[in-house]
Amino acid sequence: MEHIPILRMGEFLLITVQVDMHDRLAMKLQDDLTERIVRFGSRGVLIDISGLEIVDSFIGRMLGNIASVSRILDAETVVVGMQPAVAITLVELGLELPGIRTALSVERGMQILRREAELAGLEVLKDANMEEDGNPPE
Amino acid sequence: MEHIPILRMGEFLLITVQVDMHDRLAMKLQDDLTERIVRFGSRGVLIDISGLEIVDSFIGRMLGNIASVSRILDAETVVVGMQPAVAITLVELGLELPGIRTALSVERGMQILRREAELAGLEVLKDANMEEDGNPPE
Repeated sequence: MEHIPILRMGEFLLITVQVDMHDRLAMKLQDDLTERIVRFGSRGVLIDISGLEIVDSFIGRMLGNIASVSRILDAETVVVGMQPAVAITLVELGLELPGIRTALSVERGMQILRREAELAGLEVLKDANMEEDGNPPE
Repeated sequence: MEHIPILRMGEFLLITVQVDMHDRLAMKLQDDLTERIVRFGSRGVLIDISGLEIVDSFIGRMLGNIASVSRILDAETVVVGMQPAVAITLVELGLELPGIRTALSVERGMQILRREAELAGLEVLKDANMEEDGNPPE
């Protein structure tokens, strides 16, 4: 097993993490993902972790890194499918995944990303109006 | 690793096969999948194998079984993301995946499934008309 597949679903990318993560695999995933975000102009990344029974600090950090890098490339990240036991363990370990948005299922995650994209679209419109006036709105 | 995640995407189910398959995992996948098809009334199953470098006769048989069982439950199966090298090896081995539909990407697979569902809808309409007449159309 050499890489984690990244699936393109319209303007979003979907990753299903199933295998045990290690340093090289995580680096490869981050490289592949950023390359795809740029190539496809993706607006969001969904990471499904329903296949993971354990999320340790290494995976927590990897998720945080992916979210940060994606955000810089203008793509939002949502982690979906976390098992209840994983959530409990994360809190017990003090790993509360700061800066990472979560949703129960891929479908809900997509809803969040679509809403985000719409809001971002409105912001762009507002900025464009501002430019026309040459003045910021009061 | 105890199970392969099955993601619900609207009326379809998506499976990403990444890990090495063995008997128990394959049986569990089939059980989980049939249960989901019935629970969600899914119309199609997408199996992404872009993460597999090798597809042997065991996996070929598993894909065939899943397709057959799903078809009985009125859900079509499409295998997506096959790597070129895998296709070559399959043909060399004489494993030509009879009865399994394939598509290059998840998006194209979904298009196939949507078209199938539309055609099936037309069939249902035709059957309903037939019933009203009491006679088959000429």
